[in-house]
Amino acid sequence: MPLRAGAAPVTGRIAPRSGTALRLARGDILTVIDPQGGQVSDLVAVAASDPGEIISNGRTFDYEETVRLTTGSRLWSNRSRVMLTVIADTAPAHDFLLTPCSPATFRHFYPDKPVHRGCFGNLAEALGPHGVTPDMIPCAFNIFMNVTLAPDGKLAVLPPETRAGDFIKLRAEMDLVIGLTACSAYASNGGSFKPIDFAVERAG
Amino acid sequence: MPLRAGAAPVTGRIAPRSGTALRLARGDILTVIDPQGGQVSDLVAVAASDPGEIISNGRTFDYEETVRLTTGSRLWSNRSRVMLTVIADTAPAHDFLLTPCSPATFRHFYPDKPVHRGCFGNLAEALGPHGVTPDMIPCAFNIFMNVTLAPDGKLAVLPPETRAGDFIKLRAEMDLVIGLTACSAYASNGGSFKPIDFAVERAG
Repeated sequence: MPLRAGAAPVTGRIAPRSGTALRLARGDILTVIDPQGGQVSDLVAVAASDPGEIISNGRTFDYEETVRLTTGSRLWSNRSRVMLTVIADTAPAHDFLLTPCSPATFRHFYPDKPVHRGCFGNLAEALGPHGVTPDMIPCAFNIFMNVTLAPDGKLAVLPPETRAGDFIKLRAEMDLVIGLTACSAYASNGGSFKPIDFAVERAG
Repeated sequence: MPLRAGAAPVTGRIAPRSGTALRLARGDILTVIDPQGGQVSDLVAVAASDPGEIISNGRTFDYEETVRLTTGSRLWSNRSRVMLTVIADTAPAHDFLLTPCSPATFRHFYPDKPVHRGCFGNLAEALGPHGVTPDMIPCAFNIFMNVTLAPDGKLAVLPPETRAGDFIKLRAEMDLVIGLTACSAYASNGGSFKPIDFAVERAG
């Protein structure tokens, strides 16, 4: 169930290959935890006041001037406003280059395996009631995802190097709806589907 | 004026700091030329049949497995379909990480200079009649743009290394509307605003 801003502190577990939506008020702190290590969580942030304002990898790369985001980095919207600030981070890496796994990416990368709706389908279901259509789902901020970038530009998706208990803490800089998943793809979590834990500390 | 698919071969010039829209039928070939060298052209592709289907840097990075796109690379939509294939390319580099320059980026990066609507405003005007709202404008494929990526992930925008006459040729793999600009930002074109030339060879 989506959570409401202003409620008591909340913790939760996202089951493997699923997703959820939660509301953050400005100042709330979201912690995303990899409870077992080696799992990815796709995060999409949307302005609570208007789902047309949504997280943007390109605007974030513009203003942060890096593709490697960690403590101190800000995540920006398509309207050039700061949505979230990373205030703590124990993970070796996150990715903001790639899109959520989807039926099309399953067919492309895993032709011999069953097709799954993936993080894309889980985000679409979680964010649909908040006004986000599937076409609006952008590149997610792929928490804990281990994407290497070679000097020639080649990308490779490797198993996450997170250990059990690694986490990232993000402060909401505006009222937000967050879509958050426990990733469904084989490559991004080393082939073992795992849960993701989260906690919300309320500002008010 | 937007061009119509099926018309005679077309060539045109985009004035400095402006943009245009043009239609491509499947099989048409678009050549984008840097007539003086050292200029950038932002390209946004939209499915002619439905503006909800739009070019996606993340889907392109997913399927091409590189951030460096050149001859043979395909540019993909948010619905995981190929929109364009690069069939020839004389330029040293293109960028697909950063968003179009906009009033917000002018205020951020050039606080002492006049604010310009930038490629973002020019794309919004060119694509608006085709059903693309400003919030829908994604990372553009930034033709000729010279963005360096350091091993630690740091990004830097340097003047393009194109010489006069450098070009890229793209084949439309579906019926498209293309938004195309002559870039308005200082850093991306070395501070000298220049035109962009284009040519369309019709398939039919």
